[in-house]
Amino acid sequence: VPEAVALPESAAEVAEILRLAGEAGFPVVPRGAGTATTGAPLASQGGLVLSLAKMDRILEINTEDLVAVVEPGVVNGVFRRAVEERGLFYPPDPASFEFSTLGGNVATCAGGPKGLKYGVTKDYVLGLEVVLPTGEVVFCGRRTIKGVVGYDLVHLFVGSEGTLGVITKIVFKLLPKPSAQATLLVGFAALEQAVKGFASLLSQGLLPATAELLDEVTIQAVGHFLEEEIKAQALLLLEFDGGDKQVQEDLEKAHEVLKAQSLFVEHALEAEARERLWRARRNVSPALKRLAPGKLADDVVVSRSRLVPLLRFIKEAAARSGLQVACFGHLGDGNVHVNILYDPSREQAQAQALREEILAQVLALSGTISGEHGIGLTKRAYLPRELPPPVVALMRQMKDLFDPQGILNPGKIF
Amino acid sequence: VPEAVALPESAAEVAEILRLAGEAGFPVVPRGAGTATTGAPLASQGGLVLSLAKMDRILEINTEDLVAVVEPGVVNGVFRRAVEERGLFYPPDPASFEFSTLGGNVATCAGGPKGLKYGVTKDYVLGLEVVLPTGEVVFCGRRTIKGVVGYDLVHLFVGSEGTLGVITKIVFKLLPKPSAQATLLVGFAALEQAVKGFASLLSQGLLPATAELLDEVTIQAVGHFLEEEIKAQALLLLEFDGGDKQVQEDLEKAHEVLKAQSLFVEHALEAEARERLWRARRNVSPALKRLAPGKLADDVVVSRSRLVPLLRFIKEAAARSGLQVACFGHLGDGNVHVNILYDPSREQAQAQALREEILAQVLALSGTISGEHGIGLTKRAYLPRELPPPVVALMRQMKDLFDPQGILNPGKIF
Repeated sequence: VPEAVALPESAAEVAEILRLAGEAGFPVVPRGAGTATTGAPLASQGGLVLSLAKMDRILEINTEDLVAVVEPGVVNGVFRRAVEERGLFYPPDPASFEFSTLGGNVATCAGGPKGLKYGVTKDYVLGLEVVLPTGEVVFCGRRTIKGVVGYDLVHLFVGSEGTLGVITKIVFKLLPKPSAQATLLVGFAALEQAVKGFASLLSQGLLPATAELLDEVTIQAVGHFLEEEIKAQALLLLEFDGGDKQVQEDLEKAHEVLKAQSLFVEHALEAEARERLWRARRNVSPALKRLAPGKLADDVVVSRSRLVPLLRFIKEAAARSGLQVACFGHLGDGNVHVNILYDPSREQAQAQALREEILAQVLALSGTISGEHGIGLTKRAYLPRELPPPVVALMRQMKDLFDPQGILNPGKIF
Repeated sequence: VPEAVALPESAAEVAEILRLAGEAGFPVVPRGAGTATTGAPLASQGGLVLSLAKMDRILEINTEDLVAVVEPGVVNGVFRRAVEERGLFYPPDPASFEFSTLGGNVATCAGGPKGLKYGVTKDYVLGLEVVLPTGEVVFCGRRTIKGVVGYDLVHLFVGSEGTLGVITKIVFKLLPKPSAQATLLVGFAALEQAVKGFASLLSQGLLPATAELLDEVTIQAVGHFLEEEIKAQALLLLEFDGGDKQVQEDLEKAHEVLKAQSLFVEHALEAEARERLWRARRNVSPALKRLAPGKLADDVVVSRSRLVPLLRFIKEAAARSGLQVACFGHLGDGNVHVNILYDPSREQAQAQALREEILAQVLALSGTISGEHGIGLTKRAYLPRELPPPVVALMRQMKDLFDPQGILNPGKIF
């Protein structure tokens, strides 16, 4: 619980708050919608929570320049719909898109299912207005795609979890909206088959916008929420988008490639039918909550070629520990959400030991311990395992450079 | 002329050189192929030129992970072909692609004609091995698309023009190679028509991979190199890529959109015929050299909606000064190469005054003074006009943090 909450309505008000914090020496914790999974927006050392919720205006959507300018408190889903109404497209859609704010998305470099084809939040941020911990309001970057004048401060703020500055305005790059989408739900007899099937799509030159993978534990869990039983050990939910003919062509090719390798392939082109295929995926989070009272969730990434070894390792380690682990996530970019299901009243130690084992294996496979959730509080201890000491030292020095008094979101990341 | 040149063959050798430079206090100037247009790889304060030419191995092209690992001295064109032979695609192709090296491309964040659809070099760099000025060899980033562990040092090195560290290894993201391409050459009665024509393509949901614009002066200049006279005041060279049916669809739509607005539309689908349409564009640089003994070349960017006002301003300013100005460039991302043609023996002052006037107008239109060439030596004086003092101060402090002795490429950017 913070000592106070401020709801500023302008960059000037944010600047005043930061100047005051510098004088009085209290922590300031920037907060969007508070959907972070790592504790990043918590006032863990007390002080002031600085909510950007009231700075929620869409300032510009420019259809000619394919650019939008927004305040940080705009909810991702609100923005996406506003943009789509104008025939444009903002791809990053983290699972929290109906709640999380764009400022928070930028501060954590939020991802989502479209990483392989469309990248993540950082790929859409052209410019930022930021209030520095000193209270100075600066604009970094530009409103054009190209620009190489000095160092790239924009990408330094993206993903910095509110530790370097408070974002008060964002200039986003947009795309034209694809005219068609197709969704495929593909069942496989084994996880390995699903990964292999996806690789064969890529090798045929197909680039799905989405490739969501559900493992056996996850499929069983979502069973409660579906009318029909899913008879598969692995599910792949694919989406293709583009021009009408392109999507038709991709769909035919995908059927051809996958039919021999899979148990079934269903597809849908219309919004409602597509949403039906998404049902299993949409219910993953509530379904997992039913399985066990506790859940340790990680957000790891390895190269696709190393996914099968990682998933096999996880299954074996889970079997050894006697705990259930549900894996699902974004196959396209190798981002797996690993959920260790346990009873906190008696399995805390096993769950934690299993987590350590899995994270160590991710690093051994040259992966990363956080693909899209960030470090915040809950993964601080793991940061030095991924990053070598001189890199951590450089980052800490950068933090000191931007925030010499250490008032901005102290105790996060490092 | 530098005092010495070193041609290291490994990161360990680069590290030794930097440690020696730190001890003895001499400048080290990293150099790729020396194709920079801003003097960035020149030993302007003496010292050692550190050429990466011998570190030119492609270490890995991974078709499953869509990832490549290269040393910095690999020539862009060599890499592009190696990647395409494996059915993959590395989009960034600056005009210098047959000569310039990937290390230099990363150090300057090189662009090229594909910016709107495919972004620029920074959008393809996942990880970097860098030798810091202290001689430490560090790896930043990852070999996966997603990853949010600590600050984004990768993008800090991209575009830093060899002032923060020496890049010794690059991990690139790749794409599947599009199966088809179509090229269109479109003639317009006025520059405004070309910009408007392009805007109507976007509003129809078309996203060309390339949209090269040539103005009247440029068209006249390239006339010498072509068999037929081009009867147009503006040329637009468009390329569409994607699946076969998609490209066919885009081509039909583009014809439909453009035929009423243009003087002529030619198109080609086969490599040789496409190259014929590119001929005018390919000859721009040699053609401009024939027109005048001197050329002041800038590399400005404004939002597309501000291109027509900028180009009109340039024509009027050129007429007032009595000098010819040729404008061509990448319409998709608003990146215009402005070439002031003059006689250095008697028009130096007018040319410089005209340049100042144009750059001031670019900034007045919220543009940037360098889209893809960087700052180096020749644009240092203009940096403080684009960036506010606190931003420049932060950047300078970052330079001091990484390179406290100031041995790495001193006198560049700032």
